[in-house]
Amino acid sequence: MQNIKRIAGEIARASVPIVVVHGAGSFGHPQAKKYHIQQNPGTEGLVKTHRAVLELNTVFVEALQKEGFAATGIHPLDCLLAKRSVVKRWGVEIIERMVDFGVTPVIHGDVVMDTANGISVISGDQILTYLAKKLDVAVIGAGTAVDGVLDENGRTIPCITPSNFKEVSDYIRGSTDDDVTGGMRGKVLELLKLAESGIESVIFNADLSNMVFKFLSGEDICATRISGAK
Amino acid sequence: MQNIKRIAGEIARASVPIVVVHGAGSFGHPQAKKYHIQQNPGTEGLVKTHRAVLELNTVFVEALQKEGFAATGIHPLDCLLAKRSVVKRWGVEIIERMVDFGVTPVIHGDVVMDTANGISVISGDQILTYLAKKLDVAVIGAGTAVDGVLDENGRTIPCITPSNFKEVSDYIRGSTDDDVTGGMRGKVLELLKLAESGIESVIFNADLSNMVFKFLSGEDICATRISGAK
Repeated sequence: MQNIKRIAGEIARASVPIVVVHGAGSFGHPQAKKYHIQQNPGTEGLVKTHRAVLELNTVFVEALQKEGFAATGIHPLDCLLAKRSVVKRWGVEIIERMVDFGVTPVIHGDVVMDTANGISVISGDQILTYLAKKLDVAVIGAGTAVDGVLDENGRTIPCITPSNFKEVSDYIRGSTDDDVTGGMRGKVLELLKLAESGIESVIFNADLSNMVFKFLSGEDICATRISGAK
Repeated sequence: MQNIKRIAGEIARASVPIVVVHGAGSFGHPQAKKYHIQQNPGTEGLVKTHRAVLELNTVFVEALQKEGFAATGIHPLDCLLAKRSVVKRWGVEIIERMVDFGVTPVIHGDVVMDTANGISVISGDQILTYLAKKLDVAVIGAGTAVDGVLDENGRTIPCITPSNFKEVSDYIRGSTDDDVTGGMRGKVLELLKLAESGIESVIFNADLSNMVFKFLSGEDICATRISGAK
């Protein structure tokens, strides 16, 4: 919670037009796992998982509002239709208009209705890449709890491209026990797809004070850049 | 609040597939008025009005969840695009799928993005009629704080149709000071449009104990039926 307040402060201080996307963390993954959302979807799992993520979203939105930001939560369950756990339809014009109007949408990984599976989980990473393609996004910042993607010695890999991915692939861990959406490996794979369509992204450590502010202000930071360069 | 809990209990007891739509009441109208949402839209008005309605929605959703109902809030700001204060685009397939899946969507009047005005207010009544046309709805119940539409002696007018509307029109009051969306007159006009496209509705007193349950169970109640019959 303290981290969210700090990050909200850094976003407000940078004061650039921004769309915030966050995952579910401990507010959604344990529920999604407990109720077997991915394997055996039911109404109770949907309601409890969604409610947990909403709670986290509200903390983030209120932290930004306290900093004087016109922030509002956008809940994928309300507006995004999936098919086999992939975004199928989403009228993102609303989000575009919010940003133009001066409002900061704060969106989250969520459980959503799915035309094939009934319901499914859409990760924050999937949302990030879907929006990046649909909106006119300058740069993607993926704030994590580590200094980017690390090699076998714990050093940050400065750049990942489609051509060096195989080489670095072994170092990239997949899900932890509680993460239902792919962990760092899932994130890198999503962002690589994005890089191939020309949108670069940066994975950095948002746990460190001032990193979000520095990223948003365009300062140099220790991080992993995911780019489409050959 | 007590009323919301009672109504949630009656909805749960009737146990029929249902979409709940509620207005903003004292949780949204004063904010919409204070910030001149309709005349001079700004980000602060949007955020404060939306937040107020969200709060009311959460009370309703949690009351239904406590009754064992798989309820979830749907927030028009996330999913509905308006043009000149009229619904322009809304992917209601999500709501359809929720009901089929056994989830009860709880939707509310809201401030939304507007392609012509920047933002605008969409009333619960507008949402009701839009959804009724798009979804396969058997009957619309409009719960209010009075026994339907009243005549000059305070008696309930049993039926309003396009042909007797002129006759009864004088009795129907418009907005109160704090209602930005048309009051009983606005409601009747919306429901008459619906009646003309073949969907009947019933305006009844949801302040009276058991009325929501009786309506949902198909019992006879003292109310105003809005129908397209000549």
